[in-house]
This record gives sequence, structure tokens and C-alpha cells, in this order.
Amino acid sequence: MINTCYGFISEQVFSRLSKIKLLMLDVDGTLTDGGIYLNNDTGEYKRFYTKDGLGLTQLQSKSDCVCAVITGRSSHLVERRCEEVQIKYVIQGQKDKAPAVAELLKRFGLTKEQSASIGDDHNDLPMFDASGFCACPQDAVPFIQKRADLTLHRDGGRGAVRELCDLILMAKGIMNTDGGF
Amino acid sequence: MINTCYGFISEQVFSRLSKIKLLMLDVDGTLTDGGIYLNNDTGEYKRFYTKDGLGLTQLQSKSDCVCAVITGRSSHLVERRCEEVQIKYVIQGQKDKAPAVAELLKRFGLTKEQSASIGDDHNDLPMFDASGFCACPQDAVPFIQKRADLTLHRDGGRGAVRELCDLILMAKGIMNTDGGF
Amino acid sequence: MINTCYGFISEQVFSRLSKIKLLMLDVDGTLTDGGIYLNNDTGEYKRFYTKDGLGLTQLQSKSDCVCAVITGRSSHLVERRCEEVQIKYVIQGQKDKAPAVAELLKRFGLTKEQSASIGDDHNDLPMFDASGFCACPQDAVPFIQKRADLTLHRDGGRGAVRELCDLILMAKGIMNTDGGF
Amino acid sequence: MINTCYGFISEQVFSRLSKIKLLMLDVDGTLTDGGIYLNNDTGEYKRFYTKDGLGLTQLQSKSDCVCAVITGRSSHLVERRCEEVQIKYVIQGQKDKAPAVAELLKRFGLTKEQSASIGDDHNDLPMFDASGFCACPQDAVPFIQKRADLTLHRDGGRGAVRELCDLILMAKGIMNTDGGF
Repeated sequence: MINTCYGFISEQVFSRLSKIKLLMLDVDGTLTDGGIYLNNDTGEYKRFYTKDGLGLTQLQSKSDCVCAVITGRSSHLVERRCEEVQIKYVIQGQKDKAPAVAELLKRFGLTKEQSASIGDDHNDLPMFDASGFCACPQDAVPFIQKRADLTLHRDGGRGAVRELCDLILMAKGIMNTDGGF
Repeated sequence: MINTCYGFISEQVFSRLSKIKLLMLDVDGTLTDGGIYLNNDTGEYKRFYTKDGLGLTQLQSKSDCVCAVITGRSSHLVERRCEEVQIKYVIQGQKDKAPAVAELLKRFGLTKEQSASIGDDHNDLPMFDASGFCACPQDAVPFIQKRADLTLHRDGGRGAVRELCDLILMAKGIMNTDGGF
Repeated sequence: MINTCYGFISEQVFSRLSKIKLLMLDVDGTLTDGGIYLNNDTGEYKRFYTKDGLGLTQLQSKSDCVCAVITGRSSHLVERRCEEVQIKYVIQGQKDKAPAVAELLKRFGLTKEQSASIGDDHNDLPMFDASGFCACPQDAVPFIQKRADLTLHRDGGRGAVRELCDLILMAKGIMNTDGGF
Repeated sequence: MINTCYGFISEQVFSRLSKIKLLMLDVDGTLTDGGIYLNNDTGEYKRFYTKDGLGLTQLQSKSDCVCAVITGRSSHLVERRCEEVQIKYVIQGQKDKAPAVAELLKRFGLTKEQSASIGDDHNDLPMFDASGFCACPQDAVPFIQKRADLTLHRDGGRGAVRELCDLILMAKGIMNTDGGF
């Protein structure tokens, strides 16, 4: 077991994370806390998290890992957030997320083992099946926790994505296990 | 007792849930966390929860259970949310929710035992009395917890509705007790 | 000690609460969770709580207790919320809340012992001093907890006001100690 | 150890805090809870906290300590919040926060030991290095907690800033250790 600032991680998980060159992310409940704020007109807000954002920009700028967002719904606010955190690959409106994973693997010429995904609910299962490593936030639905290779210590939109980004950087030897560079 | 991913549930509760063909839901504090966001103009936001939404669409698409919303207030944002989660029956502005329950039972030709409701506060008691099974979120007011047949493990707007939807699907034998299909 | 659904309350506190005919409330951190949502234009949102709202309307409609809001800031959204929960007496922009308390006592012909207040921070201390009984949310600043006659079990904007309203109704013999009528 | 209403604080920390004449604050995750609310247009909200606001105005009005905000992003809403809490020195859009610290020290003619900073993530490390005392919220990323001289008991945007302001006032002998004046 490896002693990291996020708790003990098995050597097997670290070994698998070290190979990741593509991280695919769900939006609602993963990059957000699952909240959807609606008003009486057409307004809709979602809440993203600064620490997740810095984790994503660090992972992309300091390592060979590319990030992509795959979401079942479709909205401009997701594009706005992805632009802020330098995610160039945004695939929206995917009822079935598996073809999107296949497309991304083909595009980057990667094997399944070089890809990881993070999601929190049933609609992420096809993405889980199609990617080499799957993780979920602490507050994912129980069945997703059962199916994930790693349940993170933090909730969706509250640091789960940051934790995964940091663990990948640690596994690659770019970040120290205390979270510093 | 039946061992589910949401904890142990008695066989008697499972038996009652297996018969449910109509689930009636309160809005504030049940489908939302009870928050009402106001600004200095006429703006009003409420926060819904993605995992609750997927629970409702799964329950309605995979089982014979119909969902309906009964609320004491009246607002367009409730209609917007109901449309997103495929709830066709939205009864708003009901100071007394009992007649709305009676009307729905008559409309669908159901007995009281085939109906369930979920609510979090005193104004839901008439709905509780008129329906065959009543549940409440973990953070319902104490008297509602005392009166409910089942207090769920999750809070309103944070998974209580999802938990109930999943338990009904499990009781009907459609979802496994680990939350998978 | 009296066993209520909100925990044990001393007979002395119940006796004092039974005499209350005026409840004065702070806004930020008491009726809200202290959050102030700002955007890049002039937008400002605050979050109120449905269960607090029902507590206030029940207290006012079922007992001889009048409710009033006294706040240091001044905004239209406070008026909107007070109108929703039937609070007619809204005194805003009071840097020193003591004169507002005196004015209300005079207006209703009440003694200090017939008044209670709830607040969460230093600017509520003059209101505390001028009223006969003072309570605070669980997440009030430490010094306010030290000075309050009662620290409630719930946080501001998350049920503290509801708990106090219910305890007053219980002390007056209008609500049962289990929270029912 | 000194027994304060925020827990035990070492005499060495109190001694260092007593000398602080400049407190520099990060925004996202420190003055806010790290949430970024986005809509499908250009809307962006952030959530500030009343109790933090009162802590900042008290520190500035009752002591010789000046407050300044240094942030990596740039937005009008930060200016709005700073104006509300009487912070005159707002330095935005600083990818590297160290020069901003140097500039402020020079402007006020202060030594490093007379300055403190509070931040929650990696981009605050240059500010930490350049200031005499550094603190972080309870929910700062692990490496920042490791590097900070003091990890506060409260989260960012939920009282961490208030706790630090109060501890400085206590160390200066202006506030009692029970949080009262």
C-alpha cells in the first residue's frame, strides 16, 4: 500500500493509474454536486468547484494525460466550464456514452488500459465498461461504488475530481504523495 | 429483513412497496433541499438533484408505477423540473393535498394500498393519511418522521427520492438489492 | 427536564417561552445560512428555508405570538421573504438593533419578559440585551452561543428558526412535545 | 497553550499573530466555499459568508491590521464583495501572487513578519512563501494544510476567515479569548 495524502492506495491501482493518458469525466454529480438550480423563466445554474478546476489544469499541463467530458445532457454552461479548465474535448447529449469512449480512444490512438473514467450514476456504466479504469465520488449511487475500481474520499463537485487528478499525477511520479510538486 | 444497498428493509415494507402503482411527491424539502433562493427583483431559484431525477425516470420507464407531484405552492419551475424527469401529473397550489390524492386514485382506478407518498412537513400529513404508504427524507421534521412508514437514509433534494424509487423497483423485483439491473 | 422531539428542554426555559408574545429575528445567518450569492452585475441572492417558513406561519396563525424581522442591512429580498411567511413587521438597516426592539415592545404594549429574539453574531447582542429571552442557531459564533439562553440544535437557514417556533408553540401547550398538533 | 473559543492555540502562534498589520486573502475556496455557479448565458455567481464579512470589518475597524485580497482570476463580483466588507486593496488576475505581496509590504512599509496570508490551494503557495504567517481553511488541499502555519477549524466560505480575523484580534488583546469584546 502507498501512503498518500488522500489515504492508502494499493500498488496495483497506482500501477494502472500511471498508464492513463485519457481521463473521461461525467458532469452532473461528478464535476458538480448534482444540483440543478431552476427559476420560473428559463434560468438554469450548476455549481462547479475551484479545486476540481485546478486539479484538471494541473493534470493536463504537467502530464501526458488528456481530459474529456462526456455527458448525457447538453448545455452551454458545460462548454463554459470546460473552457475555463482547458478541457478541449466536450461530447454532450450522449444517451449511451460507450461510443464516445470508443471514438476518443481511436482519435488519440490509445488502448483501453490507457483510459480512465469517473462517474456517479447508472448512465455512466457504459463509459465504465469501455474504459480501463473507473472511479467514482464518495456520494455516487451504491451500485456505481460497487462497480468502480476506486471510490474516492470526496463527493462530486466537492473534490472527487481533484483527488483523482492528483492520484494520477502521483502514480506518474509527477506529484509527490504529499500532494506537492 | 432484506439486505439492500440502502440498508436493511423489513419484508413487510418490501411487500407493501411491491404493490405501489402511484408515487406522489412533495416538492420543497423533498424534491429540493428546502432552499428558496431570492433576489431583490422577482427572481426565485430552487435546487433539484440529478440522482433523484434518474431515479424517477427509471421508476417510470421500467415499472408500472406512475409518478405525480402535489405541492402547496405554485410555480413554473416545478413544471420545468417535472418535464425533465418525465412526470406528467403535476398538481400545484393545493393547500389541502388530500383531495388531490383522491382525484389521482380515481383517475388511475387504484386502491389506497396501491399508492405511496413522500413528504417532509406538516402540510404533507393529509397526503400521508390518504395514501397507502408514506415515506420521508432523513431531514423531515420530527413529527413527520414519527408518522411515516419509512424514514429514508438520505435528505430531501440529496437522494431521498432516489432511495424510495430504487426501493420500489427492488420490491417489484426489477432492480437487484445491490442497486443494479 | 421536558422531553421534546428537539431534545430535553428545562422547565425554566419552557416557562419563559410560554410567555413570549413577540419573536424578533435576525436575517443573515439566522433566516438564511449566511450565504450571499453575488454575480458580476448587480445580482444578489440569499437562501431561505421552507421548514423555517412553515414554522413562522404556524406560530403566527396558531398562537398569540407576533413575529418581526430586525436586520442591519436593507434589501427588497427580505421584504419578499417576510411577505411569503406572513411577517408584517420588517425593520431594516438598523446598525443598532436595540431601539428597534424598544419600539416594537412599545407598539405592542409588551414587557421585556414577553419578548424573545434569535440571532447569530455580534450585531445581534443589543437585540439580545433588549429582549427577555435570546436564542441562537447551532452555528452562531461562539460568543453568541455563550450569551444566548438557548443554543438550538439546527443551523441558521437550516431549521434553527423552525425549532424555536415549535418550542414556543410547545411551551404554550398548542403543539405536543412530539411536534404534532 | 491558550484556551480560545476556537480551541487551543500555542503561545508561539499568538505571539506571531499579535504582530500582524497586513492580512492577505485568497478568494475562491477561502472567502467562498469554492463553488462557481454558471448558467447557459454569461451568468456567474459565487457565495460569500456573512460571518466572514463581519470578522473582516471588525478586524479593520478595531485594530491596526489592514486587509487585502489577492486573486488569480479577475471579476467584478470580487470588487463588490470587497466594498461591502471595507477591503480597499483588491489585486486581481495575479497568476503569481508573490509580487503582489511584495508590492503591498512596500506600500505599507511593513516587514514580512508583520504580514499574514490565508489560502486553500497550490496557487497560494507563492503568497505563503512571501508572507510571515500562513493559514488555511479546514478544507484546503492536503499539501496546503501541510505547508500552513495554522489550519483553521472551519471551511472556506464557512467561517475560516472569521476564525483567523478573531484570532488576530485576540492575539492583539482587542478581543477576549471567548470571542467577546
